[in-house]
Amino acid sequence: MNITIDRESTTPIYLQIKHQIQEQILSGKLAADFPLPPERKLAESLGVNRTTVFNAYQELKADGLIASHVGRGTIVISTNDGAGNSGSHPSPLLWRQLFSESASRARDSLLGNILQMVSRHDIISFAAGVPAQELEPVDVIRDLQTQVLKDGGQAAFLHTPVEGHHPLRESIVKLLESREINVSLDELIVLSGSQQGLDIASRIFLESGDVVIVEEPTFFCALQTFRAAGARIVGVPIDENGMRMDALKPLIEKYRPKLIYTIPNFQNPSGVVMNLERRLEMLDLAYHYQIPILEDDPYGLLRYEGKAVPPLKALDRLGYVMYLSTFSKILCPGFRVGWMAAPKPVIRQFAWVKQNMDLHTSSLSQCLLDRFCRENYFSNHLKTLNQRYLQRRNIMLRALERYAMPDIFWNTPQGGYYIWCCLSEDVNTTQLLTKATEHRVAYVPGEAFYNDGQGQNYLRLNFSYPAVDQIDIGIKKLMQVIQESVVTTIDEEFPLEVRPII
Amino acid sequence: MNITIDRESTTPIYLQIKHQIQEQILSGKLAADFPLPPERKLAESLGVNRTTVFNAYQELKADGLIASHVGRGTIVISTNDGAGNSGSHPSPLLWRQLFSESASRARDSLLGNILQMVSRHDIISFAAGVPAQELEPVDVIRDLQTQVLKDGGQAAFLHTPVEGHHPLRESIVKLLESREINVSLDELIVLSGSQQGLDIASRIFLESGDVVIVEEPTFFCALQTFRAAGARIVGVPIDENGMRMDALKPLIEKYRPKLIYTIPNFQNPSGVVMNLERRLEMLDLAYHYQIPILEDDPYGLLRYEGKAVPPLKALDRLGYVMYLSTFSKILCPGFRVGWMAAPKPVIRQFAWVKQNMDLHTSSLSQCLLDRFCRENYFSNHLKTLNQRYLQRRNIMLRALERYAMPDIFWNTPQGGYYIWCCLSEDVNTTQLLTKATEHRVAYVPGEAFYNDGQGQNYLRLNFSYPAVDQIDIGIKKLMQVIQESVVTTIDEEFPLEVRPII
Repeated sequence: MNITIDRESTTPIYLQIKHQIQEQILSGKLAADFPLPPERKLAESLGVNRTTVFNAYQELKADGLIASHVGRGTIVISTNDGAGNSGSHPSPLLWRQLFSESASRARDSLLGNILQMVSRHDIISFAAGVPAQELEPVDVIRDLQTQVLKDGGQAAFLHTPVEGHHPLRESIVKLLESREINVSLDELIVLSGSQQGLDIASRIFLESGDVVIVEEPTFFCALQTFRAAGARIVGVPIDENGMRMDALKPLIEKYRPKLIYTIPNFQNPSGVVMNLERRLEMLDLAYHYQIPILEDDPYGLLRYEGKAVPPLKALDRLGYVMYLSTFSKILCPGFRVGWMAAPKPVIRQFAWVKQNMDLHTSSLSQCLLDRFCRENYFSNHLKTLNQRYLQRRNIMLRALERYAMPDIFWNTPQGGYYIWCCLSEDVNTTQLLTKATEHRVAYVPGEAFYNDGQGQNYLRLNFSYPAVDQIDIGIKKLMQVIQESVVTTIDEEFPLEVRPII
Repeated sequence: MNITIDRESTTPIYLQIKHQIQEQILSGKLAADFPLPPERKLAESLGVNRTTVFNAYQELKADGLIASHVGRGTIVISTNDGAGNSGSHPSPLLWRQLFSESASRARDSLLGNILQMVSRHDIISFAAGVPAQELEPVDVIRDLQTQVLKDGGQAAFLHTPVEGHHPLRESIVKLLESREINVSLDELIVLSGSQQGLDIASRIFLESGDVVIVEEPTFFCALQTFRAAGARIVGVPIDENGMRMDALKPLIEKYRPKLIYTIPNFQNPSGVVMNLERRLEMLDLAYHYQIPILEDDPYGLLRYEGKAVPPLKALDRLGYVMYLSTFSKILCPGFRVGWMAAPKPVIRQFAWVKQNMDLHTSSLSQCLLDRFCRENYFSNHLKTLNQRYLQRRNIMLRALERYAMPDIFWNTPQGGYYIWCCLSEDVNTTQLLTKATEHRVAYVPGEAFYNDGQGQNYLRLNFSYPAVDQIDIGIKKLMQVIQESVVTTIDEEFPLEVRPII
């Protein structure tokens, strides 16, 4: 690949690089599947900044000419993508130039890569955030489905209200009672997964430049969604008792955030639970500074030991908390059903926005999950999960004790899905992932959970999804890969192409 | 209800009105279900502009203190909504003041009202846009469901790629071939209903103030979505051959739109088909001015007579057309599955945005619809629908001939769902709807399909949803209501509260 840079030109260097690669792809010089050099290497060889090459590659990706895949680096994906074959007009559209600023902010392939990895059967994936596949109550659901389609099947076929299938809302209200949360039906909206709740909350509360407070580290999809909304993300450090209130207060005073986002139970990725004292303190701060709290609680019911702490929503006496949760961590993430409990004005505004987004959540999914709750399968299934996941957590902890080097540290979560590992400072887990997937084991690199490039020596391990007999094998492999990385210099060996933070 | 206006005050009049009503609700003076006076009446009695009262009511609605329902007017919905009981701080949040500008633009309850009306069993609804309930192939779907959950049920439970369940994408590619549209798998994305396509297209192409060209009249959800994006909507008049190209060209030159939105087949609401000549002309204009076309084609396969015209997408040789369609008009609208076929860069950008919205469309819905296509139920079902809907269309046309006054005109659509009626100029169909629902018959008022308050003497009648034996009865009732409205003055009799155009 020949690229020459003209530093006198008025064309920005990243565009010079882009145009030359584009020309070579369209002319057929670079064939499909041709591996492009890693960004850092190309940057060095051209004597330019790494971000310059990064920007050039991003443009080429957006134009559909190249693509990055974990484990394969960056490759040419098409030699004739419809563009630029005729010199005369009319000419093909330059689509990318038509895309809005906010659309451009949504470009992030990390999650896509993870979903892809989860579906690869040849990999032991600790990267997932989904329930154990083999524990899904397939038979029960098949029976319920038959019932749903037998009596009054129309509910599953026809539209439901934007706010959700009425019986399901009743079921969720009951479910919330078990968490000490008391809401009426009109304080509840069913969502197409809790991801939709993050997106709608962003649309409703965040304008470009607004500040949102998050735990640091935090759930990467939340970061991605806030980022796409153009928000400024301010992270508050956590310790073993959750978000640090001594750090939160001055940050609120400094930034006057529009929203506080928190995962108080079995936090993603750290597994930490915010203690009661801090919850009350966070509420007091919110009241004092008049800031709404978005409480994300997908894992709260998955407690394997210790005593439950009431959700912020249950402690909130003034209606400042929007409580987001989902069925997806208990069963059937593919059904895409989550919910939000919040004061009525918020629910109404959510409904207005959701109506424009998808009218309502799949009626079929809603009817089925309602039956599942209504016929009391939910609590039994939860009981099973809590036993099995405790077992898996313990297997993973034992494997870590057995295979991890002495400079690796991790927590012992009382529930949820994740173990959060801290490696020695010279390990870069983003780079290491390529190596790991070559050895057929995957995780989520720590960098994904930070907004600013921190966390490079952390990684998140999930123990709910991998098969019981694969956990020990996978951890052993992973630790070998880490050990090797410390002795050899793998830094520039293979392209670094998981780029969660843009 | 006592309200006094202080014209010397620095508080805007609409807020004075709002605060006084709010105070009376919170103090219990106005109890739940208390009917507020119609806007126009209150405006008259206070000697203020109607929009002033409208704004006051909107604020009260947003605060969750009052609500409007078709047929019930505006009523007080709550006397203690959590707000304003304690005088001391900390105080409840003023949620509405936290909502973003774009969120505020999304407030529109028309669709919610229609969905509500469709689910009322005591009304003959010509307002729907959904398939006949009794023609849904419940038994087939139950069998397919059992199969889906038997072999490899996991696909329905687990996540699918953002772009959609791979087998379903194959099935849709085949379906598109029957419409002369040839796309590859990576030129296709499955969506959570075609509404999601409208929303994502708005996010991707429209920034506040951008112009989008639409047919006039057009689908109200599209108007609503474009409006929520802050777009400027420019309508192009239609005639019996679709959007008028002689009007389109100067509007393009004047406004340089970012997007052209069109429903070329059995247009909603007019039922009109754009002829081949105009389709080619529209493409030429798009090529010349480099404007992408969003072709919305939910009804194209529902043709009862005459010859099909190829979709714009099939005629487009340069990749300017994004083709949006859905299963929802053929079967199971509650499943929420639609799709978009477009050039790869667009699909990729759609996937990036969709990922933040809901990760992916319900796997269960996708698996089922794939089976339905794959096992060839689709084409048989379509054949049945086309026979039955022709019959219903004819029944409705006959009923109109029998009962309509001589100054009512309507079209004879060759397919699709709708008959579009033009009434005499002094009839206001928005106001008439309240009366009609009292008489247990519903339609969508014409105003909903215009961006600027036109269409007040039009109404849209749907013939796919109402039961065969109800069509004649319903049309008869409706025509009676219209006739009465002409002789009596109903204008101010009851609050006008379907407010599609804000």
